[in-house]
Amino acid sequence: MIIVMKTGAPESQIREVIQRVEALGYQAHVIQGTQRTVIGAIGDERSKDRLQSLELMAGVETVLPILQPFKLASREVKGGKSVVKVGDLEIGGQAVVVMAGPCSVESEAQMLQTAQAVKAAGAKVLRGGAFKPRTSPYAFQGMAEEGLKLLDVARSATGLKIVTEVVNPADAELVAEYADILQIGARNVQNFALLKRVGEVGKPVLLKRGIATTIKEYLMAAEYILAEGNYNVILCERGIRTFETSTRFTLDLNAIPVLSKLTHLPVFVDPSHGTGHWEYVSPMAKAAIACGADGLIIEVHPNPEEAQSDGLQSLKLEKFQQLMDELRPVAEAVGRRL
Amino acid sequence: MIIVMKTGAPESQIREVIQRVEALGYQAHVIQGTQRTVIGAIGDERSKDRLQSLELMAGVETVLPILQPFKLASREVKGGKSVVKVGDLEIGGQAVVVMAGPCSVESEAQMLQTAQAVKAAGAKVLRGGAFKPRTSPYAFQGMAEEGLKLLDVARSATGLKIVTEVVNPADAELVAEYADILQIGARNVQNFALLKRVGEVGKPVLLKRGIATTIKEYLMAAEYILAEGNYNVILCERGIRTFETSTRFTLDLNAIPVLSKLTHLPVFVDPSHGTGHWEYVSPMAKAAIACGADGLIIEVHPNPEEAQSDGLQSLKLEKFQQLMDELRPVAEAVGRRL
Amino acid sequence: MIIVMKTGAPESQIREVIQRVEALGYQAHVIQGTQRTVIGAIGDERSKDRLQSLELMAGVETVLPILQPFKLASREVKGGKSVVKVGDLEIGGQAVVVMAGPCSVESEAQMLQTAQAVKAAGAKVLRGGAFKPRTSPYAFQGMAEEGLKLLDVARSATGLKIVTEVVNPADAELVAEYADILQIGARNVQNFALLKRVGEVGKPVLLKRGIATTIKEYLMAAEYILAEGNYNVILCERGIRTFETSTRFTLDLNAIPVLSKLTHLPVFVDPSHGTGHWEYVSPMAKAAIACGADGLIIEVHPNPEEAQSDGLQSLKLEKFQQLMDELRPVAEAVGRRL
Amino acid sequence: MIIVMKTGAPESQIREVIQRVEALGYQAHVIQGTQRTVIGAIGDERSKDRLQSLELMAGVETVLPILQPFKLASREVKGGKSVVKVGDLEIGGQAVVVMAGPCSVESEAQMLQTAQAVKAAGAKVLRGGAFKPRTSPYAFQGMAEEGLKLLDVARSATGLKIVTEVVNPADAELVAEYADILQIGARNVQNFALLKRVGEVGKPVLLKRGIATTIKEYLMAAEYILAEGNYNVILCERGIRTFETSTRFTLDLNAIPVLSKLTHLPVFVDPSHGTGHWEYVSPMAKAAIACGADGLIIEVHPNPEEAQSDGLQSLKLEKFQQLMDELRPVAEAVGRRL
Repeated sequence: MIIVMKTGAPESQIREVIQRVEALGYQAHVIQGTQRTVIGAIGDERSKDRLQSLELMAGVETVLPILQPFKLASREVKGGKSVVKVGDLEIGGQAVVVMAGPCSVESEAQMLQTAQAVKAAGAKVLRGGAFKPRTSPYAFQGMAEEGLKLLDVARSATGLKIVTEVVNPADAELVAEYADILQIGARNVQNFALLKRVGEVGKPVLLKRGIATTIKEYLMAAEYILAEGNYNVILCERGIRTFETSTRFTLDLNAIPVLSKLTHLPVFVDPSHGTGHWEYVSPMAKAAIACGADGLIIEVHPNPEEAQSDGLQSLKLEKFQQLMDELRPVAEAVGRRL
Repeated sequence: MIIVMKTGAPESQIREVIQRVEALGYQAHVIQGTQRTVIGAIGDERSKDRLQSLELMAGVETVLPILQPFKLASREVKGGKSVVKVGDLEIGGQAVVVMAGPCSVESEAQMLQTAQAVKAAGAKVLRGGAFKPRTSPYAFQGMAEEGLKLLDVARSATGLKIVTEVVNPADAELVAEYADILQIGARNVQNFALLKRVGEVGKPVLLKRGIATTIKEYLMAAEYILAEGNYNVILCERGIRTFETSTRFTLDLNAIPVLSKLTHLPVFVDPSHGTGHWEYVSPMAKAAIACGADGLIIEVHPNPEEAQSDGLQSLKLEKFQQLMDELRPVAEAVGRRL
Repeated sequence: MIIVMKTGAPESQIREVIQRVEALGYQAHVIQGTQRTVIGAIGDERSKDRLQSLELMAGVETVLPILQPFKLASREVKGGKSVVKVGDLEIGGQAVVVMAGPCSVESEAQMLQTAQAVKAAGAKVLRGGAFKPRTSPYAFQGMAEEGLKLLDVARSATGLKIVTEVVNPADAELVAEYADILQIGARNVQNFALLKRVGEVGKPVLLKRGIATTIKEYLMAAEYILAEGNYNVILCERGIRTFETSTRFTLDLNAIPVLSKLTHLPVFVDPSHGTGHWEYVSPMAKAAIACGADGLIIEVHPNPEEAQSDGLQSLKLEKFQQLMDELRPVAEAVGRRL
Repeated sequence: MIIVMKTGAPESQIREVIQRVEALGYQAHVIQGTQRTVIGAIGDERSKDRLQSLELMAGVETVLPILQPFKLASREVKGGKSVVKVGDLEIGGQAVVVMAGPCSVESEAQMLQTAQAVKAAGAKVLRGGAFKPRTSPYAFQGMAEEGLKLLDVARSATGLKIVTEVVNPADAELVAEYADILQIGARNVQNFALLKRVGEVGKPVLLKRGIATTIKEYLMAAEYILAEGNYNVILCERGIRTFETSTRFTLDLNAIPVLSKLTHLPVFVDPSHGTGHWEYVSPMAKAAIACGADGLIIEVHPNPEEAQSDGLQSLKLEKFQQLMDELRPVAEAVGRRL
């Protein structure tokens, strides 16, 4: 932590800051600049609630943190890249993994048809929401446990793994009975009660970035799960909120190389929610692979016009097949495979 | 709902859209423009999941909604302004109501000292967090029920009402036993499981706007609570996330007149979280009253340098007293009183 | 400038950074932390182009600047607050100054009627655009010199000062012949050729903040004008671009106390462009005064429905009169007068 | 244009709106909904200044535009894709074109060395700034005409085309004497005086998107140049400003498929400014090609640590060579070539 004093701060104020730094258990180190005095506080600043409050002391202009606040999620702690294992499936390895399926579980026929089609196209994981967080209380809220059972049916029929969202800490165990991977949606990225619960439950977690979550906050959210001893966390960029409205959100692909630099966790991309329009899914999926994503999660529906939710951003089955065919050479061009 | 066809869309595509509009239970009304055909779908569009998917049909350029998606929160439904009653306290009436207290409940001494000071200065409600949503899992997470008990002690000693946050649906009833007003924090504004739960519990709710929540989404979040039959909802602007970093968030005071136009619910402002710096709290609190806020919620701490959380944005007791003195003439200048 | 080394950076890399810091003319000061080494570079870092590039050196994690990049605009340099004199009118003093008038100069009748009305209501400066920056090349582009002449007519008739926009460096002198205050619009806040030119011309300048300009960049834009020896710069917040669309822009009133802390220059607010809706102008104008603005610039038109531009955000003459009446008690409540 | 009336707007108000619509030269078409009346105004709304002001009429809730405001830039007007010819070089064709070079022209040696290296690596156009728009007035402002001459020297030596920025309308002709392509920087995207001037000058223009420019506004800026009869406009996404600070800007690759849908103009990407960090340039450059960009503009410097500007985001010569080698298979994977 670096404490920058105001220009002309008197010796007495500098002394008081030093005393406080030392009282908090840090070592103080003073640099006399040409215009200002700067004080380095030496020690682990990550329990920094108190250190930041030095900004309230007389003569202090600002307090600059030096260390990243996350530990377990950091590349510094674990040099290499983590591979999350979901049964025999490796996520974060050399192969790019694609998860696909409808926004909402709607019926057995819908799930079976979709599961078979996405499997044939090369997807390894089936997605489908049984508990749906919807902006409107008047919109379809999901089939709940009935939906989980249909996911199970589709898994039995195809051998695909299942990823599905949990929205209430009270449901975490129920969802974990059916799912291979628990999804935390963007709106719940800082629902800390839920993060702790899925940390305890222990199943692999797909943690989506929130629409206004900085990279640092995002890694701190992952840290909540890791801190419970659950290291099987998959990150997923799914669009941030900006001023631009020609896409539903602004898919932030920059997050892929940034996260790859900062953390060892696998990084996925959701171009369906990120853009909100099916016709932009294919170009952004290719771009995601080109800049290093470990996988994709894509909304696919046999009949998007009839979908209970997110029809606008869902690919038809044949469009998904076509996308997978187009993704293969892109993956190979960057030294990966699908 | 207005469906805009592409330039040159053939008669056959227009016919298909009309058929689909009618199949969905709406009446279709066609306008032949100079460049495009536009189709009006007449009927209540608020269960609009399906209507939006018309955008997927051949020849359709875009689909424009006409109605606001919220009903119970709307001024159109309830002409006047709502007053939320918390015992003998009226929120949303002619008097501006101030809630004040520390970010976190830390000790009995802290709570009693703060409660007495803010009461003397004119506050009507005591705030204090017992369950704290913190960005870092390594930061202080609150005193939980022990903290609720200290709030109760402070209430008994002063007669102030209590507002405190609930972060987990499972805790809603427990918190409601102690609190007069349940607070939903910004991070949980779209935690729909929690919204439904506080809707059921029935106590007055202070619902904070999320940092990336549009006004419409915000009113839809309120609608979740109202739809459970709980009409005692108080809105609260607390800063949105923008590119500007000289304040911690960008307190969006524009939301006050905008919300006042759209909804009958009382609107509060939190200048402490909104700016993140104690020195900006006073000017922004005055501005909030000047543009029509029904009340304020302000962080106050006897010793901000020692606070477990949010010390930087907390006012000392005497600064809060001074702010209240300065707020009175501003309230009167706009026809209100404190 | 603080250079933070990576965890485990070897002695040799630290030595190379020190050598480079010294080669650039700074003194190096090393702090050995528990996890990292930090190097302070002592000296005036404001010609910092080269210092920042230390981030490219092996072993360096990040480089943190300590000083604000602006000098002449800084409160540190000039302790008190500046008053800009426009003839006998003082801007930045105890009195709040209101500028008002139409978006575009359209006709002599329009200008005379507006000028007389806003003067009667208490405005001191008449606004009106003769050179209009318009998003569309097909929209009305302003009356050019003809418009300047009509402003002159209105000034002669009323004694009001004139503020009008300059958009091309080549026109700066022409506009300065007619105007008392030159306006730089939001889109030109980083049009450095234009900033230098109005700096040279020497007339008082009203410099609007851009819609995506940080406070620091904004003060650097002012610095361009100040660096030419023109110290008569008035700042003006007019709305930033955020995700929220219920207002045309998000008027950032937080900028008022932030700027008041950082700079000695007077700070104005434009609630007309900031919100884009006439009905929000009045509450936001009051809020602006309440949080410390030195003045307002407001769009007023005798017949907004017929306005060539910005009709939606213009007040009718009688609404402006009413606003001025309502502003007076607010100004007094915060120790100012209108 | 669709005019939505308020719920319960009386017949008289509807009549007045119809009369006004017709007075403005449009045909009015009324739809009686279940909750509201909607009025379609039939006619070309693009000279829509006046139509929008219908929102001010009694009983009107909102006015929704139907047509896109741009004409010449629109795909609707010109079905296919435009190819901009710069001598024998085709931009917007099947081949992806790469422009590369330093941020600032600094010396003959620097330019010659860079030009030869980027040509050898496969670049077709040399970039380099002679007139530099800099945030700080105290930073290096470019070599002006001296710099243009050095670009000319590098062109003669290598046969590369030259792209360089123009910042002042008064310099447009001078710059056009030396440059093959005139660049308009992000800060000047709505400097309409400059846009008109480069439109008149007639040379190909590389128009960068502003950091807060919506796609619509961006195409309107292009329209300014096209409207002067200069159809040789190349668009370029270079990062928008969002809340995220781990990159200098947020490179918005979504803009590539969105622009490709809306306009016939070629679309480039600048991953150097878009990310601000050299290590993110390579992954984002690959992603740009993967999602359909027609070309790239990349900052390259023989010695970034010594660069007068933007050293942090510049690739070394060998890194650029490596990037070009890695881009080739990506281009081929999406059916293009380098």
